[in-house]
Amino acid sequence: MTPVSEDERLARAGLTAVCEPGDVGTARSVAEHGAVEVWWALDAEVRAAAMPARHLARVAHLGGRLLVPGDEDWPLPVDRLATADYEEAPPHEWMREPLALWVLGPLSLADASARAVAVVGARAASGYGLHVAAELGTGLALRGAVVVSGAAFGIDAGAHKGAIAGDGPTVAVLAGGVDVPYPRSHIALLERIRREGSLVSEVPPGYAPFRQHFLRRNRLIAALSRATVLVEAGPRSGALNTCRHARAIARPVLAVPGPVTSPMSVGCNRLIRSGHALLAIDADDVLGVAMPLGSPLAVGSQQEMALEPGGGDPRDGLRAEVARLLDAVPSRSPAPLDRIAAIARVAARQAAVELSCLEEAGLVEHAGGGWRLTAMGRRPSARDAPVGG
Amino acid sequence: MTPVSEDERLARAGLTAVCEPGDVGTARSVAEHGAVEVWWALDAEVRAAAMPARHLARVAHLGGRLLVPGDEDWPLPVDRLATADYEEAPPHEWMREPLALWVLGPLSLADASARAVAVVGARAASGYGLHVAAELGTGLALRGAVVVSGAAFGIDAGAHKGAIAGDGPTVAVLAGGVDVPYPRSHIALLERIRREGSLVSEVPPGYAPFRQHFLRRNRLIAALSRATVLVEAGPRSGALNTCRHARAIARPVLAVPGPVTSPMSVGCNRLIRSGHALLAIDADDVLGVAMPLGSPLAVGSQQEMALEPGGGDPRDGLRAEVARLLDAVPSRSPAPLDRIAAIARVAARQAAVELSCLEEAGLVEHAGGGWRLTAMGRRPSARDAPVGG
Repeated sequence: MTPVSEDERLARAGLTAVCEPGDVGTARSVAEHGAVEVWWALDAEVRAAAMPARHLARVAHLGGRLLVPGDEDWPLPVDRLATADYEEAPPHEWMREPLALWVLGPLSLADASARAVAVVGARAASGYGLHVAAELGTGLALRGAVVVSGAAFGIDAGAHKGAIAGDGPTVAVLAGGVDVPYPRSHIALLERIRREGSLVSEVPPGYAPFRQHFLRRNRLIAALSRATVLVEAGPRSGALNTCRHARAIARPVLAVPGPVTSPMSVGCNRLIRSGHALLAIDADDVLGVAMPLGSPLAVGSQQEMALEPGGGDPRDGLRAEVARLLDAVPSRSPAPLDRIAAIARVAARQAAVELSCLEEAGLVEHAGGGWRLTAMGRRPSARDAPVGG
Repeated sequence: MTPVSEDERLARAGLTAVCEPGDVGTARSVAEHGAVEVWWALDAEVRAAAMPARHLARVAHLGGRLLVPGDEDWPLPVDRLATADYEEAPPHEWMREPLALWVLGPLSLADASARAVAVVGARAASGYGLHVAAELGTGLALRGAVVVSGAAFGIDAGAHKGAIAGDGPTVAVLAGGVDVPYPRSHIALLERIRREGSLVSEVPPGYAPFRQHFLRRNRLIAALSRATVLVEAGPRSGALNTCRHARAIARPVLAVPGPVTSPMSVGCNRLIRSGHALLAIDADDVLGVAMPLGSPLAVGSQQEMALEPGGGDPRDGLRAEVARLLDAVPSRSPAPLDRIAAIARVAARQAAVELSCLEEAGLVEHAGGGWRLTAMGRRPSARDAPVGG
């Protein structure tokens, strides 16, 4: 992979400082002429005011980075926004792929987006909604999924906190700069996410969260995730907008039902009624549609299935390369990642992701700087797993 | 229509006294050989113990009647049970069409079943479930639908009471005789239903409600209705059985969602999740799928549609014969039913049903022993209604 040039990175940093996030005109120009040419075509005064080098220095000082397309850690799914197909007219037309992402935190966005679920909903959530958001966040984290949300009051915060309670990393996509705690009372939550997960923004550090950025930010929450779950939403909730983005990029949408007497469940119940969302009772329902068949995180949507004797073996239906990886992991003495990857003929970076998924599924474990099978992974039928590819 | 012979009525009365309701063997023998032959083929002692004449005298004394196939008031939809197609094996196989129905109350079952909705659910309902059942019962009654249920504790009682509050007739299908109040504490509710609606049973007067009859009774609740709505149900609620019967005879099933944290909503939420039920928020949702397009009771499932200017005209999409009836109703001086029916080329009995539906829709009104158009029915566009057959 050719490393991204510093000119390219500087140009994109500058463009994020002066263009509206997701602006379709900029996105098209950049796609056609390249970011460097678009950047240098800007008025010199505009370029001077953008101060890209200063923003880059600032994010480096914070311990963060600017991701641009071509970086190894660039989350490819966000590029789906380039061809998003909205049912409705503008303003949605004006939302396209991001030019770059300002990121703070140890989590790899590329890895995270392969097992991410967006959990969104109303700010003015009910006790029921907050409870369900937290339960869902924890359930998803315990099953190895990454919870993506917007760090707002209500459902967002409930989902992030639930994921943290489940010891899972979580991603907060912010409307302002990654170093601008908003809402301010969530400063401790945001700090926790920065330490263990990822804070993501389309605007440079220090930028205030402008009102119009919240709706634009929602499209990134949807695009960074394999599926979007709406936990609670009034009839005109902004979270419904996140679901529209998910539909526009053909990602599954789920909604948690609620009492027909609760104004905060109107949005969810209507979305299910119209067929625009599947009904989700729990984290298994979500992963059942979010994860492709054969993914170690994939589960049947009927919990009863997993209880049938002989059924629900997490090794069933693994993808060929994952099955090869599992075969390459030793039973007793741990082997280092590189050796396992070489035996399985899988790129080391992909092997790392898949092994951590297999770990979540309880089939392998990290030990002595390498990996080995767990008791579950050593079951006799492991030999029957498909090895071809 | 040839009147049903007294021999036939006596034979069927006798069979209801000695056969299990819905027994498939009896139903098939009767279909093949006729009720009279099957009855006389029984052992003389069995026939003597059945005492059909006494049961008929008893129901007449109560002011009720025995309905048998061929009677003008026989609710034809229950014959759908003869070809019910169950997804599962027995005991469901053993449920077939009723041989006869013991009925108490002024409501015509044939008319009622054309605009009936079953509202069912758990006995141990929550406050939420009871509230929704009552609201749904009232909403359906106010829109001209007949609420059918089983007079049990919980959702059943809530639905009946709601219908009564909405000034609508309601039908209670009982597991015991129509003169056996069960549960006993519902004696006042059952008396009210007897006076204004209909009490229905497959077993003769005086018969106790046997345990196994409750599940068999459920199939009649489904078969007497155009759609079945599940309001609240635990994971193993008997009301789920009513929904299976509705599916087996290809009637729509709806369910009211509830909190995913409530054990009493588990049955409803799962039924929606699996696609076995549509999500129902209110009475309009139910009528939107229960009533065929063009029925005066039919409504769009989006209440907003009815509020759009020019939209939601209840005359839109009327069936041809209903449109002809509407054309035949005079604007000012009321005309008698027979004359309207003759002009519209519609059978008088059907005309009576349709006119009462048109009345519920606010298009015609009863006046001076006949019918005339309301202000809404006189709108200019009435002339544009389709008149052909």
